[in-house]
Amino acid sequence: MGDDAAVIGVPSGRVVAATDLLIEGRHFRRDWSAAADIGAKAAARNLADVAAMGARPTAILVGLAAPGDLAVDWVLDLYRGMALECAAAGASVAGGDTSGAETVMLAVTALGEMAGSEPVTRGGARPGDVLAVAGTLGSAAAGLALLAAGLAPPAAPARADGEPVPADRVPNSPAAADLAGLVRAQRRPRPAYDAGPQAAAAGATSMIDVSDGLIADLGHIAAASGVRIQVRSGQLGGEPVARAGALRAAARLLSADWMMWVLTGGEDHALAATYPPELALPPGWTAVGDVTRGSGVVVDGRVWSGAGGWDHFLSVG
Amino acid sequence: MGDDAAVIGVPSGRVVAATDLLIEGRHFRRDWSAAADIGAKAAARNLADVAAMGARPTAILVGLAAPGDLAVDWVLDLYRGMALECAAAGASVAGGDTSGAETVMLAVTALGEMAGSEPVTRGGARPGDVLAVAGTLGSAAAGLALLAAGLAPPAAPARADGEPVPADRVPNSPAAADLAGLVRAQRRPRPAYDAGPQAAAAGATSMIDVSDGLIADLGHIAAASGVRIQVRSGQLGGEPVARAGALRAAARLLSADWMMWVLTGGEDHALAATYPPELALPPGWTAVGDVTRGSGVVVDGRVWSGAGGWDHFLSVG
Repeated sequence: MGDDAAVIGVPSGRVVAATDLLIEGRHFRRDWSAAADIGAKAAARNLADVAAMGARPTAILVGLAAPGDLAVDWVLDLYRGMALECAAAGASVAGGDTSGAETVMLAVTALGEMAGSEPVTRGGARPGDVLAVAGTLGSAAAGLALLAAGLAPPAAPARADGEPVPADRVPNSPAAADLAGLVRAQRRPRPAYDAGPQAAAAGATSMIDVSDGLIADLGHIAAASGVRIQVRSGQLGGEPVARAGALRAAARLLSADWMMWVLTGGEDHALAATYPPELALPPGWTAVGDVTRGSGVVVDGRVWSGAGGWDHFLSVG
Repeated sequence: MGDDAAVIGVPSGRVVAATDLLIEGRHFRRDWSAAADIGAKAAARNLADVAAMGARPTAILVGLAAPGDLAVDWVLDLYRGMALECAAAGASVAGGDTSGAETVMLAVTALGEMAGSEPVTRGGARPGDVLAVAGTLGSAAAGLALLAAGLAPPAAPARADGEPVPADRVPNSPAAADLAGLVRAQRRPRPAYDAGPQAAAAGATSMIDVSDGLIADLGHIAAASGVRIQVRSGQLGGEPVARAGALRAAARLLSADWMMWVLTGGEDHALAATYPPELALPPGWTAVGDVTRGSGVVVDGRVWSGAGGWDHFLSVG
């Protein structure tokens, strides 16, 4: 800090780098999320991208553009959230830049290093491989739907360390606590950072950070690898991948299809990977499908259009 | 490209990283600079920061936010300018992100690696050291003043490769060609990238990229090193550091003090470094002063306030 650039050790000789822009009103809302949550989430997006290559996150660099009248406390909380999320991933804030702007904009670059394994790209899945997921799916998307419907606690009570707000500040029924958990997942995702390097060390053939939605991101693996990916919704819909009870409660409230959140919601930052069938999955990974010859993504035998996370089923299978 | 993150080799085991935001209307104007110039300059700022640590630039990551109606050709030219500047520095565009936004915003992160030398920070200058500069000073600031006064050729004729426009497109007098050269320096700086690693290899004790202006940036070295830095304007004002003839022509036209551009203009991205007195300076470096006990920056025996590049002399020496 304070010099022209940061110097970060990379004993393995290979650095992994990912960059992302977050713009107020498009990627976050200050009335929906506390500053610490916005900071933590901005860091998490990029740290998860680095972990999805099989790398161990080491550092982030942060560009912040903001209007001159933005409260200093808000900015400090933002950086506090970023620093806490970095710590959760084993990384630190190494440098950055600030500028004036009309709206708040964040540019985060995460760096990581390969810890003795080869980088795991999207292009290595092979027919016969097992498809597995680490982390949760659908919670952040359900939380977003609750926020959009005005059915969420305000952002203010969120604590800088991301812990739940005190019990007397959230609606006091089991279902309400479930809903608050989904909103918390939207505001402060908890990527399974360790699962990335563990997958690489175990011999995963392909891997991706689920940021556009599971089906869309598996489509990227299918296209890059030249394979078809088959997903079994029964395995996706249970613990530990989906918080089915909470998702069902939210879906009832919003007359929504909870499985759509699981299949197309991205902001939990789960990891999806493929493994040779003879390998035991590392801890935290759950088998949810497999890889065959062909192309595209199939859910329970139905072909997915694959054009984007929020597309609909094409029941042509 | 196309994966979650880029993988970049760092055989030396230490990566150097710098990040910067550039926002339309604050850091660039589309009516003052062609897209390729804006892209090249955005890359140059960060590549120069990496070189100023003594590192060899290897890659940049680019976040681009832009309105939906921005012409695709403009964006392609922007990336072309970035790619060309990367090539000039021995680097490449390794990845990035795009987003919608109300105005054009660029977030560039440059990576580099230490090539067998220790990183050169701002904190190592010692009394007795020689102060030296690589690259030019003042040209970009003079070019900005010409642009602000409406005394510059339009942005359109600038070629994507940054070469001068054909002779019949610029005003045809020697002074006019000089002025066009200063505007070109503002639109498309030419940092001395090699000078950074060469300084590190030669044993420079401190180094900085001159981005806030020479006096302000030397102030950063003086503060971090706990020394006084003495600048001799006679050595600054001659070739190869200052294009004195062109600067004088512009100063006459604008009734300005050309030495102020040299002392306080930053956007040429020259490098300033200190060297032990017994060392021969590497090629491209010119001695312009020395380091003594004390604090702050002194120009020809006068104390500089040091608060910022655009402050005025305090004649208290």
